[in-house]
Amino acid sequence: MSFIQSVKNAQKKNHSLLCVGLDPDTSKFPEALKGDIKGIFTFNKAVIDATADLVCCYKPQIAYYAAVGAEEQLKQSIDYIHTAYPEIPVILDAKRNDIGSTADMYAKEAFVRYGADALTVNPFMGSDTLEPFLKYQDKGVIILCKTSNPGSADFQNRLIDGKPLFMLIAEKAENQWNTNGNVCIVVGATYPQEMKSIRAAAPSVTFLVPGIGAQGGDIISVMKNGVNAQGDGLIINSSRAIIHASSSMDFAEKAREAAIKQRDSINTARNV
Amino acid sequence: MSFIQSVKNAQKKNHSLLCVGLDPDTSKFPEALKGDIKGIFTFNKAVIDATADLVCCYKPQIAYYAAVGAEEQLKQSIDYIHTAYPEIPVILDAKRNDIGSTADMYAKEAFVRYGADALTVNPFMGSDTLEPFLKYQDKGVIILCKTSNPGSADFQNRLIDGKPLFMLIAEKAENQWNTNGNVCIVVGATYPQEMKSIRAAAPSVTFLVPGIGAQGGDIISVMKNGVNAQGDGLIINSSRAIIHASSSMDFAEKAREAAIKQRDSINTARNV
Repeated sequence: MSFIQSVKNAQKKNHSLLCVGLDPDTSKFPEALKGDIKGIFTFNKAVIDATADLVCCYKPQIAYYAAVGAEEQLKQSIDYIHTAYPEIPVILDAKRNDIGSTADMYAKEAFVRYGADALTVNPFMGSDTLEPFLKYQDKGVIILCKTSNPGSADFQNRLIDGKPLFMLIAEKAENQWNTNGNVCIVVGATYPQEMKSIRAAAPSVTFLVPGIGAQGGDIISVMKNGVNAQGDGLIINSSRAIIHASSSMDFAEKAREAAIKQRDSINTARNV
Repeated sequence: MSFIQSVKNAQKKNHSLLCVGLDPDTSKFPEALKGDIKGIFTFNKAVIDATADLVCCYKPQIAYYAAVGAEEQLKQSIDYIHTAYPEIPVILDAKRNDIGSTADMYAKEAFVRYGADALTVNPFMGSDTLEPFLKYQDKGVIILCKTSNPGSADFQNRLIDGKPLFMLIAEKAENQWNTNGNVCIVVGATYPQEMKSIRAAAPSVTFLVPGIGAQGGDIISVMKNGVNAQGDGLIINSSRAIIHASSSMDFAEKAREAAIKQRDSINTARNV
């Protein structure tokens, strides 16, 4: 089954557009899990078990694993989701990109080695560098469009033929790159007006939306400006605000509470 | 010692602007090294020992390791260079980037875990996402500017206030990001006219130049258009054309021959 279809099914089953970002910062772990790299999988497993009925996907950010040499724990976490909760797809957030021969290797890293269902990629190097990812027809290729950070204005907002760069990317996502129906784009919750314009340019593309929670994006604005004609087309991510809601041994319980709150806020806003 | 100073010293000592890209494609290994991931380090060590007196740096591309789970062999290769040839700095080519808190983790991956002397980064997300890398004052931060692939025209060439995006990046590299003197930029050998404009906008920044060898860039054009006022400021990379010059057991010997040829072509062109 394709990534996009899996997400839709999980959204329906769990009545949730929420994606939980598995970005384990070991400095925020309870004492009992600190000091041993294996604690990362123990932590993730507890968060996953506490939230799997509340989400439409998980999104581990690879840097949190790579910084501490926890590739094995990343693989274990993805495998665990696929085995215990096969209905929930996994996005590997790695923002990869390079020339074709190297992009092939990055695609292999994400889709073959880790078995991720989708990967975030950076479009800066151009369309030819996206092809090695796009040819994996059943995998989601989630292309950066308008990111949630303040500095996204530096280049993404600059006008090209009268249109911001992010609009060019949105148009290519809708009209050029999506021949296999596997393209999504990243649109930050922190820029609701830009999200509205991007939705108009890319009506059929699913948005991965970071920036709620710790970064301050507003869910009502996201739902108002980001939904497609069917009232969905959004994957709304929250990482730190959920997984590190507590740094004590009740972290999984508090993650569940925070995830319920986010899911419900999203669902309430969907009906506004 | 800073990355930039190390490169200058190695360029002087070895009379070479050549960087060898350690992008081991195991499908091009001699039969005896295939099938065991440890063969990657054996391969790299042989190439390093055969070329260390001919280069100003090495540049492993991380995707070639990550695709096959060879993080240990990547670390071993970097450690081996630092121990056996401490005068030769190592660029980790990973084209990383993300929002600040995640970029911190990528910087840790490159500079702390792997001990790389420099890292390639992607500027698409904006200046704030470069800061976590730039604050490592002695490490080189090598920012994509005009890449060597045909698709680099898709976004990098688009005009913003009458100037191509790559010129904006070159200007920021020269005037804004380089306060610690640790910024370099990537400028593909395949676009000599663009290189000339970029050198005019960024006279004090060192260029990492991919695209000679397998990608077809011309060394004479690179030297003519890319050198700074002192006649250097270039790190010229070649990967496949050197390390996979032979797929038999004479690969290291053939790598040395290819590296001598490249180094000499560069030095001849320097004096044109």
